[in-house]
Amino acid sequence: MKPSHTLFAMSLMLSSVAFAGSELDSLLGVLKANGTIDEAQYQRLIAEQASSKSELAEASLPRSTADASSGLKIVSANKQFSAQLGGRVEVHGAVYNDDGINMGDGTTLRRARIYVKGKLYDDWQYKFEYDFAASDLKGVKDAYLSYRLKEGTELIAGNYRVPYSLEALASSHANTFMERSLGFAFKPGWHLGAGANLSGANWTWNTGVFGDTADQNTAGEDGEWIVGSRLTWLPYQANSSLVHLGIAGLYGDRGDHSDMTYKSGPESKVTKINLVDTKKITGVDSYSQTGLEAALTLNRFNLQAEYMAATLRRGEGDLNFDGWYIQSSYFLTADSRSYKKGRYAPVKPRSILGRNGIGAWELAVRLSEVDLSDADIFGGQQQDLTLGLNVYATPQIRFSAEYIEVLATSNPKTAEPELFQLRAEWVL
Amino acid sequence: MKPSHTLFAMSLMLSSVAFAGSELDSLLGVLKANGTIDEAQYQRLIAEQASSKSELAEASLPRSTADASSGLKIVSANKQFSAQLGGRVEVHGAVYNDDGINMGDGTTLRRARIYVKGKLYDDWQYKFEYDFAASDLKGVKDAYLSYRLKEGTELIAGNYRVPYSLEALASSHANTFMERSLGFAFKPGWHLGAGANLSGANWTWNTGVFGDTADQNTAGEDGEWIVGSRLTWLPYQANSSLVHLGIAGLYGDRGDHSDMTYKSGPESKVTKINLVDTKKITGVDSYSQTGLEAALTLNRFNLQAEYMAATLRRGEGDLNFDGWYIQSSYFLTADSRSYKKGRYAPVKPRSILGRNGIGAWELAVRLSEVDLSDADIFGGQQQDLTLGLNVYATPQIRFSAEYIEVLATSNPKTAEPELFQLRAEWVL
Amino acid sequence: MKPSHTLFAMSLMLSSVAFAGSELDSLLGVLKANGTIDEAQYQRLIAEQASSKSELAEASLPRSTADASSGLKIVSANKQFSAQLGGRVEVHGAVYNDDGINMGDGTTLRRARIYVKGKLYDDWQYKFEYDFAASDLKGVKDAYLSYRLKEGTELIAGNYRVPYSLEALASSHANTFMERSLGFAFKPGWHLGAGANLSGANWTWNTGVFGDTADQNTAGEDGEWIVGSRLTWLPYQANSSLVHLGIAGLYGDRGDHSDMTYKSGPESKVTKINLVDTKKITGVDSYSQTGLEAALTLNRFNLQAEYMAATLRRGEGDLNFDGWYIQSSYFLTADSRSYKKGRYAPVKPRSILGRNGIGAWELAVRLSEVDLSDADIFGGQQQDLTLGLNVYATPQIRFSAEYIEVLATSNPKTAEPELFQLRAEWVL
Repeated sequence: MKPSHTLFAMSLMLSSVAFAGSELDSLLGVLKANGTIDEAQYQRLIAEQASSKSELAEASLPRSTADASSGLKIVSANKQFSAQLGGRVEVHGAVYNDDGINMGDGTTLRRARIYVKGKLYDDWQYKFEYDFAASDLKGVKDAYLSYRLKEGTELIAGNYRVPYSLEALASSHANTFMERSLGFAFKPGWHLGAGANLSGANWTWNTGVFGDTADQNTAGEDGEWIVGSRLTWLPYQANSSLVHLGIAGLYGDRGDHSDMTYKSGPESKVTKINLVDTKKITGVDSYSQTGLEAALTLNRFNLQAEYMAATLRRGEGDLNFDGWYIQSSYFLTADSRSYKKGRYAPVKPRSILGRNGIGAWELAVRLSEVDLSDADIFGGQQQDLTLGLNVYATPQIRFSAEYIEVLATSNPKTAEPELFQLRAEWVL
Repeated sequence: MKPSHTLFAMSLMLSSVAFAGSELDSLLGVLKANGTIDEAQYQRLIAEQASSKSELAEASLPRSTADASSGLKIVSANKQFSAQLGGRVEVHGAVYNDDGINMGDGTTLRRARIYVKGKLYDDWQYKFEYDFAASDLKGVKDAYLSYRLKEGTELIAGNYRVPYSLEALASSHANTFMERSLGFAFKPGWHLGAGANLSGANWTWNTGVFGDTADQNTAGEDGEWIVGSRLTWLPYQANSSLVHLGIAGLYGDRGDHSDMTYKSGPESKVTKINLVDTKKITGVDSYSQTGLEAALTLNRFNLQAEYMAATLRRGEGDLNFDGWYIQSSYFLTADSRSYKKGRYAPVKPRSILGRNGIGAWELAVRLSEVDLSDADIFGGQQQDLTLGLNVYATPQIRFSAEYIEVLATSNPKTAEPELFQLRAEWVL
Repeated sequence: MKPSHTLFAMSLMLSSVAFAGSELDSLLGVLKANGTIDEAQYQRLIAEQASSKSELAEASLPRSTADASSGLKIVSANKQFSAQLGGRVEVHGAVYNDDGINMGDGTTLRRARIYVKGKLYDDWQYKFEYDFAASDLKGVKDAYLSYRLKEGTELIAGNYRVPYSLEALASSHANTFMERSLGFAFKPGWHLGAGANLSGANWTWNTGVFGDTADQNTAGEDGEWIVGSRLTWLPYQANSSLVHLGIAGLYGDRGDHSDMTYKSGPESKVTKINLVDTKKITGVDSYSQTGLEAALTLNRFNLQAEYMAATLRRGEGDLNFDGWYIQSSYFLTADSRSYKKGRYAPVKPRSILGRNGIGAWELAVRLSEVDLSDADIFGGQQQDLTLGLNVYATPQIRFSAEYIEVLATSNPKTAEPELFQLRAEWVL
């Protein structure tokens, strides 16, 4: 047996370990043809390898993978199927420097969401999410099925967020502040509906038609019918920097339910008090809302602003309300915000607190305002200034501290309270 | 070294990859015995292989498997243990041609069930399921533990469905129509109980004793005590064809709770209106129900019928109510219904919509009737005709469209409404 | 090629199967250096191995493991991450020999808990648990995040049990009896808070500050502020035997919510009746509780006792209540209780019912008392004697039967009822 033969055999053997298939048979065939082994030896060796080959075959097959870094996740070997159990829990604590009104210091379980989501045959995706926290958020959140017609064209049906507002659509784990701004009074939130989500390399366009929310179970007709659409554009994107522009509009027909309410707390939800509140506005036939979005991320630096306006049509004359915020943040560590398809995504710190670093640290400031008074409706005006510190300990865990000063409020029962609040938040 | 020795060594080596155990030691022993290696070399090589052998051993062990095609599922390597997180979500939309009564067009999240089920030591099985939809279905569904005494003999305890009615026991994912028939007024539903489930190759016999439902948490005695039994028989079964016959009976003692109600909507649950409704019947001491089932599946063709009757015993004299349905369906594609242990199971389409085909398409028609009037109780009569189309996109995803015409109703407030409804349903 | 060269090459090859990395390249390098193969052969062989090597690499990498024996569990290959979906379901049935009061025989779904817990980067742990049973237990249970500063020093925040009482802190799957003792009236239960958990080889010391419970969502200030601390010590521990001593204290400031209630049922929760009940005690400024614990496990034999006392401070004068129990159990099979970090843990039977044995069988007896009367508050006294039998079928499944005799109660509406109750419990 020449050295080169030996090496050839070795090379085939090594292959056979990986492919565990025909290579060993080929080798034995070659050796028999060369006269190195006789027919009897050949038959015996073929038989001897049979059982070990089948075990090898199984061991070297691609397998489904299981991941524990974000809840439980399983991905099929061919990547066409996946399923994940995940969630998000938030605990808030707040102390209020009450100014004429007892706002209620304390603690609260703000969010406790568990979801199951998955992919079927590559093109179908589903998600079901429920919030278990004993708050006004309790109930069904995402509960949708989507189908990818082709890359960048997705059909969706079920309970999902009406496409409106940059901060309303981003996860609370991705937004910079503990609570969304005062203008979140205009949030449409989740509704049962169907629509199309289109996207390209640097734009998204989502449109849908919606009825009740999933947790409404009223006897009459659906409370309202909404058509909503949102268009976003990234005129600039490079590495960790981007410029985001967005515009959204929605039209709501109030159907049987002509009463509407807009209200907002002091960007803190340990208290249940809403400093601005239109109370029940009766006789609303329809309403429309518009939204303008702009954001800039330059590595560690962020600037983000939105303007939201609502017009309510009723017999006694239209009502106009609006709100806006402008916010900025800066990472003390070499981190930056993430962005995906028209929304900011959760920050992924470059280092892990307590292992290879201190996580990501971010300072933030926000000025926001809302005006819910018009004609005979005295919902009130409010303006807040917020200073915040975020510590992203790991990609899953985040701590926040905020000082909020209510700069101005027309609420007659209170002057301008201050508040300090803390949050621990983790995704699973 | 002779070629045959080399080959023998190679054959052992290959085995060692698979078995990663004693074969390499054997090889080295042989080589040492042959004088090919000396004692020192032998000891060194044995030591060198140790760590790589242990890694090989681990890599070639049979492993638990993880599956993502139906929620998350894990099966232990020895198949004795399994655990699965799954569920089912349904979104319905309906438009009613109201005839004298506002039934309420709109959308609803009809079901949102998440379950965990599993197998322990081969013979024990458990399931816990909760419905998160804000409907009358919200709450604990299956919550049972079962033990297989031997093949075909299973003991079960916990919250599970009283064995009654072919369509009541089948999953909504397996039933042909969006809603069960008018006779579903007689559904006993889930109760806390214990029983025995017996089965053979072509028969099942389930019997149980039941108390409260899991979601009842009343201060007094359990609302009722129920004994229920159901026997099914497959006189014919071959490939995709079968004949099913079934008979069921249940007896309920009303105990402390002598009030009863039977009611039924128009086979549509977006509206909350029940066109037939006995309202509260007082003074019921006990009641009994009987059910007859017959079904025929001939490849693509199905025919299914049930008759349900109830007798309520009270001081003022007995009351008798009944209902029935007959339905037929035909697959336009080369598909057929599935059946397992006395129940129809979800359809598994032969092709996947958008990948290798159009899924499974099924046309269906149903006529159903219920009579809830007797003696002094005027619950009303109703008769419905339903035309349906089902598109099974994948084994997990199904879309339905139905036109229902209420042929007759004794409800004084309405004549005969028509309705059109759509459903998207997916299991996870 | 000398035999020793061949063997050296073989040894490298075998290593390459396991490490699938640089060893094959090393071998080829050696063979080229020896002149066994020429440059062209070397290049070709290097190229040929490339694809099989990468497949080998993947196949031989340590993988995450998936486990189905306790819900679904995934552990990452490096053991730094894990995630588990688990839970616990309990069905109770009870018959009461009512003595002057209708307690309500029947069945109930006592607990139906589902949790997700996990480990992130080794040092972070989280858990979220919800009870779905329609009982007073329904709602958020554990919802915490903890961080291990170093071995034996853990920081924790979120909703978790105030550290108080051996039986209150143990899982119902680990406690000997179906319900905790009469003194469980003093349970602080779960609250939103933060604290430190310290532990050594034979001691634990847990301290925390707490506000509302997670399910309280009141508008005013948190109902109370609690500081609690518990110290446990194992003066003796060997194999299946141990001596446990514990002491705990807590101080509660009632803040806005000055009303308090202590109450207790007859150690049975199918009935909703509390035989002792202080009803609403008004004007409580603050309260404190102390607890003493002692337990002995000697292989099959167990002895456990606790004393709990509460002092309520109010304008009209202090109130003092207390309670205690002493219990003993003995395993008929060669089993014993488990213990971990200051708490008893679920029993792991040595044999599996129906496979290799009969599981673990345990006889138990308990005497317990509570006194909720003092000054102007007539909550009542009660003393119960319980005889119990536990059958641990598998580590996950347990059945219990109990006979309880109320030896004495000052409740004017009843003399001393007897009761018999059964439980089926399984963890998933």
